[in-house]
Formats: sequence, C-alpha cells, structure tokens
Amino acid sequence: MTTQGLPSPLARLIENLERLPGIGLRTAERLAFHLLRVERPAALELAQAIRSLREELEPCRECQNISIEPLCPICADSSRDRRLLMVVESPKDLAAFERSGHYRGYYHVLHQKWSPLDGTGLEGSATDRVLARIERDAVKEVILATNPDAEGDGTALALEARLRRAGVPVTRLARGLARGTSIEYAAPDILLEALEGRRAQSSSSD
Amino acid sequence: MTTQGLPSPLARLIENLERLPGIGLRTAERLAFHLLRVERPAALELAQAIRSLREELEPCRECQNISIEPLCPICADSSRDRRLLMVVESPKDLAAFERSGHYRGYYHVLHQKWSPLDGTGLEGSATDRVLARIERDAVKEVILATNPDAEGDGTALALEARLRRAGVPVTRLARGLARGTSIEYAAPDILLEALEGRRAQSSSSD
Repeated sequence: MTTQGLPSPLARLIENLERLPGIGLRTAERLAFHLLRVERPAALELAQAIRSLREELEPCRECQNISIEPLCPICADSSRDRRLLMVVESPKDLAAFERSGHYRGYYHVLHQKWSPLDGTGLEGSATDRVLARIERDAVKEVILATNPDAEGDGTALALEARLRRAGVPVTRLARGLARGTSIEYAAPDILLEALEGRRAQSSSSD
Repeated sequence: MTTQGLPSPLARLIENLERLPGIGLRTAERLAFHLLRVERPAALELAQAIRSLREELEPCRECQNISIEPLCPICADSSRDRRLLMVVESPKDLAAFERSGHYRGYYHVLHQKWSPLDGTGLEGSATDRVLARIERDAVKEVILATNPDAEGDGTALALEARLRRAGVPVTRLARGLARGTSIEYAAPDILLEALEGRRAQSSSSD
C-alpha cells in the first residue's frame, strides 16, 4: 500500500500501470509521475492511443489479423497468391514476414499458442477457419510459421494433425543456424537441429 | 521502423509507449499487444486513469503538492503545527512521511531538484513561496528533507543559502547508518557520514 497518501487519480493510475506485465510498483510509480510531469498533450495522447487501440481495431474477418477495416489490407489484396496460406502465432510475426517482402501468399493469425503447462490448447475454431479457407481458395500449401520454441513446435504439431485430413501439403519453416550468428555461441539444441537437418552440398560444376 | 506493417492505432500506441522513460521498443510492443488482448474495460480503465491524472489533479495553492482540491487535505487540516515547515523534493517523499505518521507540520513540495549537470537550477519562485509561508505562519523551523544524494544535497544547500536571510532555523534530516542495514555492506561514504556524525553515548545510570 505505498500508494497510500497519494491523491486518488494518481493512486488509481499507479494501480492500473502495475497490472501491466513486467511493470512492478516502482516502475508504475515512476511512469505515473512521469505522466504527471510531461506536457499535458503528450499524456492525453497516450490515453487516446490506448482508447483508439480498442475502439478502432477488430480482427480481420478472413485471417483474424488485427485490422482497422473488417477485411485487412492483405486479405483485400487480390494480387496475392491464394494457393499459399501461412499460419502465424501473432500479428507481429505477420508484420515481420511482410517487412521481409519474401512472401506473397495469405495468412492466418492464431493469436494463441498450444501451451499445455498454462492449460491453453488450440481452439477448434482456429483449425476450422484454416480448413474452410483451404477448401474455398484451393490452397496448395499450408506453411506453419510458428516460433522455433517448445510452444511453437507444440502448436505446429497440434495443427498439423488436424490439417492432415484436408489432404493439403503442410510445411514448416527451416530450422538450423540463423544467418549471422556464430556456432561458438549457439545452444546445443540449435547445433543438434543444424546437424540433423544437414543437406548435401551441391557439387560445384567447373 | 519495426511498427511498419502494423495497423496505425497499434503503431501509434507503440510509439507513445516507447516515449515513456525506461520503455524500449520491445517492451512498448509487449505492452501494446497486452492491451490488445486484455478485457476491453481493463484497457479503457488505464486510458481513463491517464486522462483523470491530468484533468483532475492540480498543484495545491499552498504547498504545491498534487491535489484534487485547490487546497490539499494536509494544508486544509488546521490541527497541524504551523510552526514546522518541511521542504521535500516530490509528492512521493511527502507521502512517505505521512505514512510514517511522525510529522505533524506542513510541507512544501519542490517538484524539482538542483541538478547543474542537467542544467536545472532551483526556480526563485520555490524559495519565494517558502519565504512567504515562513513569514505568514511565523514558522519556527524549516526542515530540508531532500534525498541523501548529490542532487538532494545540492538542492538543500541552494535553498539553505536563500532561506538564511529569513532568520529562521534551517535543519536537515539526520544522516548515518539506516536502521536495519548492515555495516558490512554499507558504502564507504555512508560509513564516513556515520563516523563524522557520531554522537556521545549517554552514560547508563544504574
């Protein structure tokens, strides 16, 4: 109760900030006093940005990515390749692929992962949406682009099992050494995956 | 530009969060996605708490502490001792003294410190307010309760020099070993202050 003795609007803000992940009481206090000191428009802009986030965004009716329009710009772009469907965990992962500029298919955003330790499984509705899209768009390949960690692997496995009945090829992103990292500092399980996934060197024809 | 490819309300919130002290891009993203996932009322409550902070609070016209009313509850409490005036750096310091329950005088909140490296000095208006209050309330002692660090010491010294002409005794908080800490882990400058401020042990009369 160290917000005791502070005026209620300040105490209430500290309590609200403290509920955010990774924000303890000290940080919440520091942020609240910062918001008390900064120019008023800067503080009100943050408040408005939080409101807008929840008032202007909704899930895209096709891919579930967060969107301002009912249909997100990617799903609305008919020039993309309908035969490719990439399943990602989060809008951030989708944004990363878009920034890389190397993917021209469509997406499905799960917004969840398979995490049995937290008691969260994959909702059937996610699979149903992917299956419906495979059928409607005659998808030729589903790329499971989940993160290369235990939860991502679990999510991919759970999805793969359910998608197999659609009879469409399901692929996963390549695993191995990430370009620019060094073997010296790579964790043992990274080296194991790099070894297990090794490929024959194409013979140089001269 | 890793907010690129995200819908504008989300990108705008991430940019706003990133302006907060100690919040980098990664944390700003994590917080924004958290606010996207939590129950809508929880997100809107945080937005409203920030608005209220800047719309409901103002400086108390007497002590400059942040307050809902033009006159804060402490200054409005006529049962306190008008002859004591404690100068603190921030509302948090005031709240700490109030929680301790050991002080029954009034306060003046500086909201600033003397920090020549940052180019901030003490505004004359702060001293003027303290001097005016000393005269009006016939204050018998001004306690400079600034923090025991370089900036707090500088603030106290700067204030002391200006208050001396009021002819009122100016005191500072005691310095030494903090109760409950251990000599073993005390920094050298703490031990120096504890040594320099040593007092004669009162003889036990038996």
